Amino acid sequence: MNFKEYIRDVQDFPKQGIVFKDITPLLNNAEILEKTTDALLNLVKEQKIDKVVGMESRGFFFATLLATKLKAGFVPVRKKGKLPFNVLSKPYSLEYGEDALEIHTDAIKKGDKVLIHDDVLATGGTAKAVCELIEELGGEVVQCNFLIELDFLNGKDKIANYNVDSLLHY
Amino acid sequence: MNFKEYIRDVQDFPKQGIVFKDITPLLNNAEILEKTTDALLNLVKEQKIDKVVGMESRGFFFATLLATKLKAGFVPVRKKGKLPFNVLSKPYSLEYGEDALEIHTDAIKKGDKVLIHDDVLATGGTAKAVCELIEELGGEVVQCNFLIELDFLNGKDKIANYNVDSLLHY
Repeated sequence: MNFKEYIRDVQDFPKQGIVFKDITPLLNNAEILEKTTDALLNLVKEQKIDKVVGMESRGFFFATLLATKLKAGFVPVRKKGKLPFNVLSKPYSLEYGEDALEIHTDAIKKGDKVLIHDDVLATGGTAKAVCELIEELGGEVVQCNFLIELDFLNGKDKIANYNVDSLLHY
Repeated sequence: MNFKEYIRDVQDFPKQGIVFKDITPLLNNAEILEKTTDALLNLVKEQKIDKVVGMESRGFFFATLLATKLKAGFVPVRKKGKLPFNVLSKPYSLEYGEDALEIHTDAIKKGDKVLIHDDVLATGGTAKAVCELIEELGGEVVQCNFLIELDFLNGKDKIANYNVDSLLHY
């Protein structure tokens, strides 16, 4: 299955000089959506997962699908001020600037085995912040799972202490 | 199944005087996550669906799940400036202010049967704008499907020309 056929390059988005990987054609096709989910699951293999953490907003697309297939709960990580209850917050640097990420303090229990999912691994700033949030809540990061990894940005180096698996590499 | 046990009232979020319905406890529980998906699907019954449209961001949680179960494609509707490709845009009024919603112009084909999903039906401003976007692209709105409907805001009146089904009412 050549998933890359369903990913569209958009020039100069969100700003000049960036080539954005648009995954909406892949989401739009029912058969490819299902096959992508299965392929992402295949990266997890037989590992037991208690919680799947998805990153706002595009990480949400596959994170609930992965959670359901793994019989795990789903936990959203969101940008500052979006989650309504008690949060743990962490500043992070990202490809296009700075922000803070938040997780509900009751979302992860001590000892929870956690799968992190996002659509793209770029510089790794987001993923590193999320790994730290999960560990501060007592969870164990079993895998950082990505649909796309932009190898030339070396994001993997920033989360070198974790298992990182990506379906597609550019 | 009393889904309401898994929905938490948060006072004064996102601003003073608003009681926010926090669905993260429901998402966090693997069994309840799956049962909620099945219950939302049950609202759709045997209708054929080509595309499930989910509204940023909390609408994404269940929209991809519904799409996969219905063997449909998934289409995100996002706030202004978030979608990378050619978009159709519509201004709308929402509970807490004003914004614009966008959809990719190639996301819906003429004659597509579309299920719209969002987590909450409040004043109906978002849902109405999304229905109009879909119809302008030639799609047919089969159902507006919500996890939660805030009956006291009468959002249903604003989308009275469409089939509206919500799992939980407050």
